[in-house]
Amino acid sequence: MFAGAVLGVIGTAGSAMAQALKDVKTSDTPLVLKAQGSFFVGGDKVEQTQGELGDLGPGGHITVNQMYVRYMVPQGGDGNVPVVMVHGATLTGKSWETTPDGRMGWDEYFVRRGHPVYVPDQVGRGRSGFNQAVFNNARAGSAPANSLPRWLRFSDENVWSNFRIGAKPGQPYPDTQFPVAALDELSKQGVPDVSFGGIPTPNPTHRGLADLASQLNGAVLMGHSQSGSFPLAAALLNPAAMKGLVLVEPGTCPATYTDEQIATLAKLPILVVFGDHRDTLTGIEALPSWQTRYEACQALIGRLKTAGGQAQMLSPAEIGARGNSHMIMQDKNHLQIADLIFKWMDERVSKRSGAKK
Amino acid sequence: MFAGAVLGVIGTAGSAMAQALKDVKTSDTPLVLKAQGSFFVGGDKVEQTQGELGDLGPGGHITVNQMYVRYMVPQGGDGNVPVVMVHGATLTGKSWETTPDGRMGWDEYFVRRGHPVYVPDQVGRGRSGFNQAVFNNARAGSAPANSLPRWLRFSDENVWSNFRIGAKPGQPYPDTQFPVAALDELSKQGVPDVSFGGIPTPNPTHRGLADLASQLNGAVLMGHSQSGSFPLAAALLNPAAMKGLVLVEPGTCPATYTDEQIATLAKLPILVVFGDHRDTLTGIEALPSWQTRYEACQALIGRLKTAGGQAQMLSPAEIGARGNSHMIMQDKNHLQIADLIFKWMDERVSKRSGAKK
Repeated sequence: MFAGAVLGVIGTAGSAMAQALKDVKTSDTPLVLKAQGSFFVGGDKVEQTQGELGDLGPGGHITVNQMYVRYMVPQGGDGNVPVVMVHGATLTGKSWETTPDGRMGWDEYFVRRGHPVYVPDQVGRGRSGFNQAVFNNARAGSAPANSLPRWLRFSDENVWSNFRIGAKPGQPYPDTQFPVAALDELSKQGVPDVSFGGIPTPNPTHRGLADLASQLNGAVLMGHSQSGSFPLAAALLNPAAMKGLVLVEPGTCPATYTDEQIATLAKLPILVVFGDHRDTLTGIEALPSWQTRYEACQALIGRLKTAGGQAQMLSPAEIGARGNSHMIMQDKNHLQIADLIFKWMDERVSKRSGAKK
Repeated sequence: MFAGAVLGVIGTAGSAMAQALKDVKTSDTPLVLKAQGSFFVGGDKVEQTQGELGDLGPGGHITVNQMYVRYMVPQGGDGNVPVVMVHGATLTGKSWETTPDGRMGWDEYFVRRGHPVYVPDQVGRGRSGFNQAVFNNARAGSAPANSLPRWLRFSDENVWSNFRIGAKPGQPYPDTQFPVAALDELSKQGVPDVSFGGIPTPNPTHRGLADLASQLNGAVLMGHSQSGSFPLAAALLNPAAMKGLVLVEPGTCPATYTDEQIATLAKLPILVVFGDHRDTLTGIEALPSWQTRYEACQALIGRLKTAGGQAQMLSPAEIGARGNSHMIMQDKNHLQIADLIFKWMDERVSKRSGAKK
């Protein structure tokens, strides 16, 4: 019955699935860029043995913990405040690009609205790579296999409840904003996630984001889900580089900040964004409902406000937008949600780049 | 002494290195795109256990073997022949983007010359992800650790000889075209490569490239190093979708093709591109010199010509360009090399997209 319920969207196991290029939509007006490209932030040189490098060539040095960043700067917009968009667990920067059903991603939409946009892959994922040494050591027998970090992926079935598309697989909420027919394309965005034990502590992506914002002479940092709290962590490393923080469906809003940390964060414009149907059980015992996390974020906002801060919650449902999912940047009304973020930026965030006043 | 020789370029182990954003150069004229974005080609649905998925949530289906593709289409150029650029071992699509010293990548240059450009990450790498099940099984003890595939990276020291920047670390060829001062940035492009045992046989990227070319109604496929022969493999899967094949510093030019396969390939425009200093020993016992591979490609070109084909070798050194490295698309004269490829396309490849005549 479980398998039957999802058969319509998962196709035949083992077969190639429908291709997506034909579904990609093209805008009516061209995208005019002053610049686009990619670069890296951070990285540590380490020396590794021949075995740790895969036992093909000799041992030596490699770079690990670097953060890949792709960027687009709109023509005429290079003085506007840059926006950095960081993805969530088991995902990559792809989250912010073309949506699963082929619509423009937030990356391009923010550029068309005049903002330089920077999309990293978290350290340990995608084009940022990871430190492979321990896996090669386990292969060679020089490290115990049970010491290996796990590689996480979410099953397509679990995504229904965990990402709040429907309470059960194959049963979307009648008002869901997620493009359900394109769920197979969301499945393709999944990559193994080694950040539960396979990257250093503290997460090098925090420092990477702080350094990137500094190099940009100030930026709005936007995190999602797993990285939802990363803008807070980056702000505590370099508050002067932060023009604003946007926490999209954050997996955590820490309750452990000291009063001093709260005082630092209270100086920054902070927006938390949550979708709908938050009471849905995630389907993963270790993970609390999104409503529980929403409430933790309300508590954090409360602390920040008490400290004189201007943090606020954006719940699109409260202003009439129903059915938004965890993947709100890919939802059918994603540009309307983005417009709400622009409204907040207009009210709270300096529109210009440059050193914080 | 070895360590001393490379000290100047590897910095202090463990420290953060020079940042790259400040070195990124911006063009004088804007880039006008009809479209840009990303999508996936292919992918297989597989069912995995809770343990195989990382032991956090329940078992279920995921997609593996999908191929991520980022694209840019120039305004007014959507009828021109698309070019697909595939990267080499331990690298990602980043190879074709902004160079290590911040110059425009071939991806943008080809777009500025009017061609839609498609840059995949090979299946198993970068934003295409890989199949993590066997690693989680080894961690749980349900698969032997010595059955794990290796994760390959090349050391910075080995790159000097293997990528032919100099015969020894820290000693660049006097005429090298590689931007040696930016070698640390090339190091950051490295990611672990599981394709030596960790992806299915035949490599799903071959089918992905053939299907992508078909979806594009014909394309020029360009491979590099490890993927240098992939355009040949894709052409044998769907020759009608191939407008031309460019093999940049291919790691292999197979000697095993049947006469029937040669007859198929002989119908296609094929260009092989090799840089300079090919006699340099790779520094890896299992890997022959690039001169040996050059000669294998000459032999393949000979077979194709005997069968009536128009395959040809482009050795920039023979027309006066000296010192090109294995990373020829990142060399200081990379746009001049690209211009030689455009000259070949002008002579041999239909300039228009659409079904092959």
